[in-house]
Amino acid sequence: MADHVETTVRQIMESGAFRQAVATMTAEHDRMVRDIITLTEVEAPSFQEDARARAWLEMARAHGLEDLEMDREGNVTGLRRGIGNGPMICVAAHLDTVFPAGTDLKVRREGTKLFAPGIGDDTRGLAVLLAFLRAMDAAGIRTRADILFVADVGEEGTGDLRGMRHLFQQGRYKDRISAFITVDSPDMNRIVTGGVGSKRYRVTFKGPGGHSYGAFGVVNPMFAMADAIGRLGRVPVPDRPKTTYSASVTGGGTSINSIPNSVWTDFDLRSEAIGALDALEQQFLGIVDAAVAAENEVRSTRNGAIVAEIVKIGDRPAGNTSENHELPRFARAAIEAHGFPTSYEYSSTDANIPMSLGIPAIKIGSGGTGGRQHSLDEWIDVEPDASLRGMAAGLATILAVAGVA
Amino acid sequence: MADHVETTVRQIMESGAFRQAVATMTAEHDRMVRDIITLTEVEAPSFQEDARARAWLEMARAHGLEDLEMDREGNVTGLRRGIGNGPMICVAAHLDTVFPAGTDLKVRREGTKLFAPGIGDDTRGLAVLLAFLRAMDAAGIRTRADILFVADVGEEGTGDLRGMRHLFQQGRYKDRISAFITVDSPDMNRIVTGGVGSKRYRVTFKGPGGHSYGAFGVVNPMFAMADAIGRLGRVPVPDRPKTTYSASVTGGGTSINSIPNSVWTDFDLRSEAIGALDALEQQFLGIVDAAVAAENEVRSTRNGAIVAEIVKIGDRPAGNTSENHELPRFARAAIEAHGFPTSYEYSSTDANIPMSLGIPAIKIGSGGTGGRQHSLDEWIDVEPDASLRGMAAGLATILAVAGVA
Repeated sequence: MADHVETTVRQIMESGAFRQAVATMTAEHDRMVRDIITLTEVEAPSFQEDARARAWLEMARAHGLEDLEMDREGNVTGLRRGIGNGPMICVAAHLDTVFPAGTDLKVRREGTKLFAPGIGDDTRGLAVLLAFLRAMDAAGIRTRADILFVADVGEEGTGDLRGMRHLFQQGRYKDRISAFITVDSPDMNRIVTGGVGSKRYRVTFKGPGGHSYGAFGVVNPMFAMADAIGRLGRVPVPDRPKTTYSASVTGGGTSINSIPNSVWTDFDLRSEAIGALDALEQQFLGIVDAAVAAENEVRSTRNGAIVAEIVKIGDRPAGNTSENHELPRFARAAIEAHGFPTSYEYSSTDANIPMSLGIPAIKIGSGGTGGRQHSLDEWIDVEPDASLRGMAAGLATILAVAGVA
Repeated sequence: MADHVETTVRQIMESGAFRQAVATMTAEHDRMVRDIITLTEVEAPSFQEDARARAWLEMARAHGLEDLEMDREGNVTGLRRGIGNGPMICVAAHLDTVFPAGTDLKVRREGTKLFAPGIGDDTRGLAVLLAFLRAMDAAGIRTRADILFVADVGEEGTGDLRGMRHLFQQGRYKDRISAFITVDSPDMNRIVTGGVGSKRYRVTFKGPGGHSYGAFGVVNPMFAMADAIGRLGRVPVPDRPKTTYSASVTGGGTSINSIPNSVWTDFDLRSEAIGALDALEQQFLGIVDAAVAAENEVRSTRNGAIVAEIVKIGDRPAGNTSENHELPRFARAAIEAHGFPTSYEYSSTDANIPMSLGIPAIKIGSGGTGGRQHSLDEWIDVEPDASLRGMAAGLATILAVAGVA
C-alpha cells in the first residue's frame, strides 16, 4: 500500500503539467549547459561573489520572480508566488567557489564532459534553478507554497555560511521559511539530511626569527608548525560518526636566509557528531600547545620563544532533519522514482543553518555526474539523459514539497 | 720585532693625513647617520634594488669618483684612481635587504639606537663607504692602488650573489681586481676569511587535492611537507665545520575546505666545508623522498600520489682566503690597533665569489654595534665613539691594502 508521500510523488510525475515541464527542460538542455559555462567563467571566490551574483540576477530577470533583488549580504532572492495562504519554502544554490581570484576558470569541453574549477560545486546548481523556473512557467504549474529562489553567498570555507545566516536570522524572509532545499553538486544519490559541523582555525606560529646561518639553533616557528601538522596527521578518527581534519592553506616567512618570524596554517576539523567534533577540537588545541612546547624545548629560546596565535575562523553548527520528516521522504521517493538509488548522508552545506534552527532542510543533487570537486581538475558530465533525469527528480521533489495546486 | 704588516698599519695610523681623515669622519658623523636613515627607508628587496641604487648613486655623485655608473646587473660602481700603474682593489657594500616590498622601513630612534629592517645589514655599510670617500678626499690621501667602490645587488638570499658574479665574471672590471673587501654589518670583531657555501631549494609538494571532508583519507601534500620539515629539524649537524639548515618561507593551498593540490617551502642549507654541505644536501634530498613515500604509504593514493618538485634556487660557492695572506693580516692589524679583538670566521658574503675564483677577499665590519639582523627588530647603535673607532679601523685596513702614496 503506497503511503501519502509516494502517492503525492506519483501523482505529480504522472501529471501532464509535469511531463510538459520535463519536455521544456529537455528542449532547453543546451541553453542550460550554456548558462553553466557562462556562470562558471565569472569568478566567485567566497566574499567576492558580486560579479557572479549580478550575472545570475540578470539571467533570472526574465523568469517572472517577484521582488528579485540582492540582499545586504549579497544573496540574490526572488519569490515565485503560490496560490496564496500557503507556507513558504526555499530552494537555493550557492554562488561561491573555493577558488581564489585569478584562477583560470575557462571551461574545457571533451564530448559531454566539461572541466573547470567550481563547475559542479555549485555552478551547475545555479543554472538548474533557472531551468526549473522556466519549466514550471512553460507548464503553467502553480504551487500551494510560495517558493523563494536563492542564489546565495558564503557556502564554502571561510564564507562560514554567511549567506544562510543572513537569510534565516536577519533577512526579510526570516521566520517565514518552513522548509529548505539546497540544490548543490551533481550527485543525485546522496540526500543530505545531516549537517556536518566544523571548526576552522588559523594558527600563526611566531618566534624571534633571525639569520638562517648566524642564528642557527634558535627556535624556528616552521618546525613547530610542521610538528603540529604532523601530529594532527597521526590522530586516529572514527569512521562513524565520520570525523575528519585537514591542513589546508599555509604561508609565511620573508626570505630564504631568514629563520621566519611568523608562519601560519589554516586547519579544518569536521564531524557528523557534535561530541566527536568537540573531542577532535580539544585534541587539536592540545597538539598545537605540545608542538610549540617541543620546539621551545629542542632549540634555543635565547632570543625569544615560539608562541602560537590561535584564531577560530569558522564554526558551522551541526544539525539534522529527521528521516521520518516528509521533506527527505519526498526527496527519496521522487529521486528513486527516477531510477536513482539513494542514501541519507551527512555533509556541510547551506542546510546546516536551517537544520541548526530546527527548520526541516535537505540537500539534493543538481543532476548529471561530476567529480574532483575543490580541485583544479573539477568536472561534470552533461550527457542529456542522466542530466535531465536528475533535474526531473529535483523538480518533482520541489513540487512535492511545495504542493501542486 | 714588528713585521711589515704591522709597520704599514702603524705608519698609516700615525700619519697626519689619516688623522685628518678621522677628524673629517668625526665632524661628519651626524651626516653619515642621516645617510643611513635616508637609505634604510628606500626599500631594496633582492631583485628590487633599483630605487636604493639610484639614491646611493646620487649621493655618491659629489664624491669625485670616475666612471660612476650602474652596470647591467644593477651594481653601482665608481673608481677612485690611485697614483697610476698600481693594482685595482675593490671595496663594496650591498644594497639589498631580506625584507620584501611593503615592509615598514621607517627608522625608529631611541637615544643612539636606530631600529629598522636592514639598517645594519648592510645599509650602514653603504653610508660608511661614502664617509670613507669624503674623509680620504678631505685629507688629500692618494693611494697606490685604484680603488673601485661598489654598491652591489643580490647579496641576500635568492639574489644568490648575482651582483658579484656579474662584477667578477662579466663586468668591465673583471680580471682586474686583485683584492676585495666587503664592508658588511657593524661588528668589527669578526673578519670573514672563509665563504660559507650554501644550497637553496624550493620544494613543491603536489597531490590530487580534493574536498577536505569528502576526500578525507587521500594523501595531503601538507602532511608530506610537514614530515620533510620535521625530519630536517632532527638532523644532527656538526658545530665544526659549522653546518646549518632552515625551513624559511612557505606557501600554498587554496581554501580551508580543500586538501591542497600544491604547497611549497624554501630550504636553506649551509656549511663552512664543501664536504659537510654536500653530505647535508644528500641527506636533505633523501628526506624529501622519504617524506613523500611515507605520505603515499599512510593515506590513499586512489586519486593520485604525492610528488615533490625539487628546484635548486641557490648555490653559493664556498672558498677562503689564506690567513697568511696580507689581506686578512692587514685587516686584523688595523682593527686590533683600534682596540677590537678579532677572530677569523666563515660566513656567506659577497666575498664568496672572489674567494671561489682565487682572488683574496675578506669581509670587515662597518663599525658601531647592532643585532637581530634578518628580523623585523633589527637595530644598530650609532653611539659616536664606537661607531667612529670601527670606521677608522676600516679605513686603515683599506689604506693598508691599497697602499698610501
